[in-house]
Amino acid sequence: MSNKTNQQWGGRFNEPTDAFVARFTASVEFDQRMYRQDIQGSVAHATMLTEAGVLTTDERDMILQGLSEIQQDIEAGRFEWSIALEDVHMNIEAALTNKIGNTGKKLHTGRSRNDQVATDIRLYLRDEIDLILLEITRLQQGLLGLAEQEADTIMPGFTHLQTAQPVTFGHHLMAWFEMLSRDYERFTDTRKRVNIMPLGAAALAGTTYPIRRDITCQLLGFDAPAENSLDAVSDRDFAIEFCAASSVLMMHMTRMSEELVLWTSAQFNFINLPDRFCTGSSIMPQKKNPDVPELVRGKSGRVYGHLFSLLTLMKSQPLAYNKDNQEDKEPLFDTIDTLKGCLRAYADMVPALESRKEYMREAALRGFSTATDLADYLVRQGMPFRDAHEVVGKSVAYGINTGKDLGEMSLAELQTFSDTIADDVFEVLTLEGSVAARNHLGGTAPNQVRAAVARGQEKLKQR
Amino acid sequence: MSNKTNQQWGGRFNEPTDAFVARFTASVEFDQRMYRQDIQGSVAHATMLTEAGVLTTDERDMILQGLSEIQQDIEAGRFEWSIALEDVHMNIEAALTNKIGNTGKKLHTGRSRNDQVATDIRLYLRDEIDLILLEITRLQQGLLGLAEQEADTIMPGFTHLQTAQPVTFGHHLMAWFEMLSRDYERFTDTRKRVNIMPLGAAALAGTTYPIRRDITCQLLGFDAPAENSLDAVSDRDFAIEFCAASSVLMMHMTRMSEELVLWTSAQFNFINLPDRFCTGSSIMPQKKNPDVPELVRGKSGRVYGHLFSLLTLMKSQPLAYNKDNQEDKEPLFDTIDTLKGCLRAYADMVPALESRKEYMREAALRGFSTATDLADYLVRQGMPFRDAHEVVGKSVAYGINTGKDLGEMSLAELQTFSDTIADDVFEVLTLEGSVAARNHLGGTAPNQVRAAVARGQEKLKQR
Amino acid sequence: MSNKTNQQWGGRFNEPTDAFVARFTASVEFDQRMYRQDIQGSVAHATMLTEAGVLTTDERDMILQGLSEIQQDIEAGRFEWSIALEDVHMNIEAALTNKIGNTGKKLHTGRSRNDQVATDIRLYLRDEIDLILLEITRLQQGLLGLAEQEADTIMPGFTHLQTAQPVTFGHHLMAWFEMLSRDYERFTDTRKRVNIMPLGAAALAGTTYPIRRDITCQLLGFDAPAENSLDAVSDRDFAIEFCAASSVLMMHMTRMSEELVLWTSAQFNFINLPDRFCTGSSIMPQKKNPDVPELVRGKSGRVYGHLFSLLTLMKSQPLAYNKDNQEDKEPLFDTIDTLKGCLRAYADMVPALESRKEYMREAALRGFSTATDLADYLVRQGMPFRDAHEVVGKSVAYGINTGKDLGEMSLAELQTFSDTIADDVFEVLTLEGSVAARNHLGGTAPNQVRAAVARGQEKLKQR
Amino acid sequence: MSNKTNQQWGGRFNEPTDAFVARFTASVEFDQRMYRQDIQGSVAHATMLTEAGVLTTDERDMILQGLSEIQQDIEAGRFEWSIALEDVHMNIEAALTNKIGNTGKKLHTGRSRNDQVATDIRLYLRDEIDLILLEITRLQQGLLGLAEQEADTIMPGFTHLQTAQPVTFGHHLMAWFEMLSRDYERFTDTRKRVNIMPLGAAALAGTTYPIRRDITCQLLGFDAPAENSLDAVSDRDFAIEFCAASSVLMMHMTRMSEELVLWTSAQFNFINLPDRFCTGSSIMPQKKNPDVPELVRGKSGRVYGHLFSLLTLMKSQPLAYNKDNQEDKEPLFDTIDTLKGCLRAYADMVPALESRKEYMREAALRGFSTATDLADYLVRQGMPFRDAHEVVGKSVAYGINTGKDLGEMSLAELQTFSDTIADDVFEVLTLEGSVAARNHLGGTAPNQVRAAVARGQEKLKQR
Repeated sequence: MSNKTNQQWGGRFNEPTDAFVARFTASVEFDQRMYRQDIQGSVAHATMLTEAGVLTTDERDMILQGLSEIQQDIEAGRFEWSIALEDVHMNIEAALTNKIGNTGKKLHTGRSRNDQVATDIRLYLRDEIDLILLEITRLQQGLLGLAEQEADTIMPGFTHLQTAQPVTFGHHLMAWFEMLSRDYERFTDTRKRVNIMPLGAAALAGTTYPIRRDITCQLLGFDAPAENSLDAVSDRDFAIEFCAASSVLMMHMTRMSEELVLWTSAQFNFINLPDRFCTGSSIMPQKKNPDVPELVRGKSGRVYGHLFSLLTLMKSQPLAYNKDNQEDKEPLFDTIDTLKGCLRAYADMVPALESRKEYMREAALRGFSTATDLADYLVRQGMPFRDAHEVVGKSVAYGINTGKDLGEMSLAELQTFSDTIADDVFEVLTLEGSVAARNHLGGTAPNQVRAAVARGQEKLKQR
Repeated sequence: MSNKTNQQWGGRFNEPTDAFVARFTASVEFDQRMYRQDIQGSVAHATMLTEAGVLTTDERDMILQGLSEIQQDIEAGRFEWSIALEDVHMNIEAALTNKIGNTGKKLHTGRSRNDQVATDIRLYLRDEIDLILLEITRLQQGLLGLAEQEADTIMPGFTHLQTAQPVTFGHHLMAWFEMLSRDYERFTDTRKRVNIMPLGAAALAGTTYPIRRDITCQLLGFDAPAENSLDAVSDRDFAIEFCAASSVLMMHMTRMSEELVLWTSAQFNFINLPDRFCTGSSIMPQKKNPDVPELVRGKSGRVYGHLFSLLTLMKSQPLAYNKDNQEDKEPLFDTIDTLKGCLRAYADMVPALESRKEYMREAALRGFSTATDLADYLVRQGMPFRDAHEVVGKSVAYGINTGKDLGEMSLAELQTFSDTIADDVFEVLTLEGSVAARNHLGGTAPNQVRAAVARGQEKLKQR
Repeated sequence: MSNKTNQQWGGRFNEPTDAFVARFTASVEFDQRMYRQDIQGSVAHATMLTEAGVLTTDERDMILQGLSEIQQDIEAGRFEWSIALEDVHMNIEAALTNKIGNTGKKLHTGRSRNDQVATDIRLYLRDEIDLILLEITRLQQGLLGLAEQEADTIMPGFTHLQTAQPVTFGHHLMAWFEMLSRDYERFTDTRKRVNIMPLGAAALAGTTYPIRRDITCQLLGFDAPAENSLDAVSDRDFAIEFCAASSVLMMHMTRMSEELVLWTSAQFNFINLPDRFCTGSSIMPQKKNPDVPELVRGKSGRVYGHLFSLLTLMKSQPLAYNKDNQEDKEPLFDTIDTLKGCLRAYADMVPALESRKEYMREAALRGFSTATDLADYLVRQGMPFRDAHEVVGKSVAYGINTGKDLGEMSLAELQTFSDTIADDVFEVLTLEGSVAARNHLGGTAPNQVRAAVARGQEKLKQR
Repeated sequence: MSNKTNQQWGGRFNEPTDAFVARFTASVEFDQRMYRQDIQGSVAHATMLTEAGVLTTDERDMILQGLSEIQQDIEAGRFEWSIALEDVHMNIEAALTNKIGNTGKKLHTGRSRNDQVATDIRLYLRDEIDLILLEITRLQQGLLGLAEQEADTIMPGFTHLQTAQPVTFGHHLMAWFEMLSRDYERFTDTRKRVNIMPLGAAALAGTTYPIRRDITCQLLGFDAPAENSLDAVSDRDFAIEFCAASSVLMMHMTRMSEELVLWTSAQFNFINLPDRFCTGSSIMPQKKNPDVPELVRGKSGRVYGHLFSLLTLMKSQPLAYNKDNQEDKEPLFDTIDTLKGCLRAYADMVPALESRKEYMREAALRGFSTATDLADYLVRQGMPFRDAHEVVGKSVAYGINTGKDLGEMSLAELQTFSDTIADDVFEVLTLEGSVAARNHLGGTAPNQVRAAVARGQEKLKQR
């Protein structure tokens, strides 16, 4: 990058900017990634200024032609970015004037960098949200496919990481699906508040030119222009809200990752992760590490951090624009990149998960996982729930001492705890009986899982 | 509080809970505030169990009568909460059994504390969101009233806390209004995801009883039952999302507070805060401190902190319920209390703000606030904007040296910078001319402010 | 609490404080817990004022007598705290004047609430840090005892939660010991910066009375008086630093807790937690949940949150004291309480942990945990490490396919991967051989563990 | 970067790593900045292995020669980094083997990437802390110089941003100095815990080779080897502690920045920032914005964020190394870069601050800043402090109504509030009298400020 003096606001100044300060305060190294949106905004602005009678059609055409060439230059890698020109906006405008002469200087009429940058970020973020929504859907599709396939696979359900009740693996996967459905909704809600147009707020108070905000709004696909100019240039809520929604998504991914890490351990052994999603160890030749889930779990930290970065940034800022706000971009951009990377890795990986059904089943058989079923059985015989709980608690204590699970005790043994127990009890103590009996909306019964998958497919179709 | 042993799950245990552990793990000291929602949920559950044929109508009536008496006991302050009974749920259920005998033990049929507590929190939070929405509206009403009154009051608009352009005080207040409108929307969106019913998920997998979730859903006013039992008991997204929306609201309040603190300083002196919102100093007899805005600004910290607390809490938790989740309540409750307090203080205070118009005006006159108007004037004479910027920059440098604002220079002086300047320039250099010229949607012109107030009033009416 | 008007600074005010504002801005509900330190500070201040000739010895004696009675009143529960008097300082001072008349009003000479509250918090925190240091030591003692006992117990060491190499359980416990040693050091370093005396800074600029800060400093056991009055009343670094050290400690406890939760799962089954540290389930009669580790893990969230709360609080505050600072206390107090609770629970629980040696050993035997030993064996035969790694990698792949661990393969089988393997290889493939061979400072060999325990005991002795 | 398959651990794997996964999990793009420390560690390790008899001196010499050439290649920009080789360690080791053949493969004997990376980070951070300490000292030197120069300059001291008491500008600057002194101490304490050597922990359990950790420890300048291998590879406390100390430093810089922004506003006008530290506006030609303080204030967000990123990262990680830990580097590196940039900008800028003494003085004269002096005067006449406070409060109320400051009232007027007031009162009501009277350690009296500067200079000399 070159480093000359910025000529766009120097009139009032007696000495050039300190060279280190110029570097320290410049943003072009990271905001250049918005060049496409910056040009898109300028095209709309120039078009509107022509409609409003501020530019002639000739001037507009020169500007549009110049911007189009600049975009090609950038995409071809032959654009020289200059730190002295501070940011993407100044760089592109200076290049324009360089290309087409004085007419280029007219482009900034009736706008300011304050509304320009706010417009660029929103356009950029809107595009990225749309990509993220697509990746969420792709991951959800993978989950639906796997859940359908595993609708009958029985595994232990855990609370407190203790064996609780048998569930189906498909049901568990559909819990992940639900988390992601809320994420999808949240990003959709956030998008509404992103898609509001600051352009026209100028520096902070609006402009004296007869601008037509309805025109730029339509050209840029915004839902509405921002209602107040001071707010329009100061508002970074949308970036915070996006990072908050992203933090919840990443939190969900830590939970999935934690489970995948557990399930691929030798102790659980519920899942095989194909080699292509794992790496090895430089010292221990036998290792095959679940790198992808671990790394995704770790990446939650950076997204949480970015959220707090932005909340801190905006705390106690008086209106309207302050230089502090330049710090909004890097956390936002890194959040976007992280989400896209993590979602892609998961969307690729989930369909390749291989369940180890025999280990899941064996684990479900241990740990008195049908104790609740026995209690429910007793209640159906007329015992109050709390008393049934007590009876089963005692039979479990007996089982721990004798090393027998409930289904392994004889009828006589079971009857020592309650004489209402009869031969039909063994039906409810099977894993299949247990899961099939939870047969209501949201329950783990295989046909409920299949119904949930069908509803999920319908939902994705309607996006 | 009394501290006896919990009899609700002791069957399997060989030794009583350690006394310190019992205190350390109990939640009743803070979750008792949900007693109303806990009873409301139990009433709906008992009613549904009767419809489903699990309870008789007599049993239901006894339970409803018992719960009603317990609610009266609590509200009359004659309910003895027990730490040994751990939480609000066990306390109420034990009291019920105490009151009505064995029938009380049947209430817990087909549910678990895991779905019960998730249901209670959502009911509680839903009620509190509705109160918060009302307080936001009340504060916004105060802002609309003041903005209308101050639609013509001119003050300096700032960027970088440097005088930028004149704005109207009403316009500035409407920027605050806009922030709060987004907060209102965000809480409304959050409420949709709060108002989903976990009840029926039981411990984690659903239940073997023929429950009718549609009935409880309708009785409790939920929008829909949660679709997956594992997710239903593990999901705390709604609490995080609420704290995220709250953090943004508090961030807005730090910005308002920062401005009020600045404006009440001797240096700005734009505003008088009535004595009743201030306190004094124990040592400096002249002090009148803007305590309310300062304290509200400081309280942003606790709400940000609670958000981070919950995000940390949920990180890496495997499904389904874990004891960690007990830690969701205190941050949530304190966030609710903080928001209600801060909003109330502001809704009371804002209508009592007294502007000091003469100081605002005087400040706007200083600092070359109409420099942009001069540049725009030159552009209208045909000069490219960037050149006009340069010309005005030089005249400002001259003004700093000579101690004259732009409006105080003679025509001859101004013409040394550009000979296109004519006598009509002085019109655009007045404060009134400057603000009136920014006359488009979102601009600071007084009639735009009045139009914005009218739109705001319409919006509040439709809530 | 009563709620009358504060008479301590009302002279300049025209209207009483709004009743809600009085409640909203009062701190006495949470700062009264510093009453002992407040009185301690006042006693020192009065003593110093007498030395400095500002108070007579009679006045001092009346004040000391009055304060002593007030302390007794508070401790006996017969002190009426008043919200109108805002905080602990005003409450005690008003009570003093009530008790001893006009002389009580002289106590505040040469100080302000600004330096008074800063002094109180530091005294309070210093006391609490000392208690926390004791609890850390108690927990460390428990770890040393258990580590010595388990110095020979072999378990699998994990990286990426995959079986890596055999380690001893005692070695693992000593890793926890090391974490806590750093915590101890950090709190000790923090304490140095806590133990600096703000008293004498008065409101912000010092006082015109001939105070003797050396005297109060010595009486209160501070290391030194703060060097700058503006800084002394604005500085809350010590609270942030304490919360940062606490966050690291809590992070350590999440790691220990995560491991205990894993180890008590049916899948690992490495550990038994005595019943008294667990609770059951209201619905699943077989459950015994590791509540203490789970809850401690969850409580990390609140401490992290408090740290962020305080960092947010202090961001962008101009000097000197602002009302925002009142918000420093609740996060600090809750952090203290949380740490003491979590440490106590662990210090009680750790010595009661029961290892299940047979399950640990069995797990270590699985998963090719001695693969690195085989590689090292090959290196000792002259093979470069990277080549040895490749050879062992291939033998592991063979083992996965044939279901044999390395120690279960025949010499002939092993030699198909490298003909330098001889009969002595089986020695290095035993668990005992593997751990014993890591025999250097920090290694897992049992005698190294015992040496580490001995060094640890020496370290604790010297505290 | 090239992207081939990693041959260092592939023996056990059946399919190559997925290309996206390889990119997603690689760290070489950001960890290559530690190349110097990686080589430094390898040199020490090879040297030690020779002493321990594991390598021959010829092998060592080849390795050292190879590493030296690689370092030159990297520094000359002719080293090709490969993503397939994942990280800086593998890249350098592969290049070594490429250069010197099989002997290169022996370098990794007795170590693992787990202890290698932990060693590299600590070496890197230690170097950076030393640079940061130097920059803090440079900034403090600038403050001492300015404080000495401004020891007599009177400005208003603020609490609650309300005029409180007169202070000297030098005294205010020395408050900043004090903050930075604590930062210096904290980084020094952190450095102790950074400078501990993980090398020798190998993957997690130590190694079977006869390593000599005392030798590597001495060669690398570490204070001591880490005491426990499991802890050594899992511990990232030092990174968190560094980010916590950095957050406090950045918080201090937000406070200084906030004040500089206020002071350069037209309303305060206490300070002139030379043009070279400011930038202008693209639309408002008169603007000169305090960009450096604003940007530094904003950069607090990213450092706070990184702290929380790391705390989140480490939460609930079981021992020992997990892939999550790869996420420790970017937050740490960006924190280092941010600190160095902000400190440099301030160290350059502070000596160039120009005070506007007349505006400071004028502001101090307004706002009843000597009210406390009047109260102290009355106390010296024998009035209890609380009564004096009341008297002065009333005279201030009178002053507000009549528009007179205390020093502008006649003796007769003052005596209407207390007849003990005599002619000598006017002495204490001057600004000079007020500041001179606060003449004790830490007070604002000019000679106390000069004494504090002298102590400060002594302190810096001893570093």
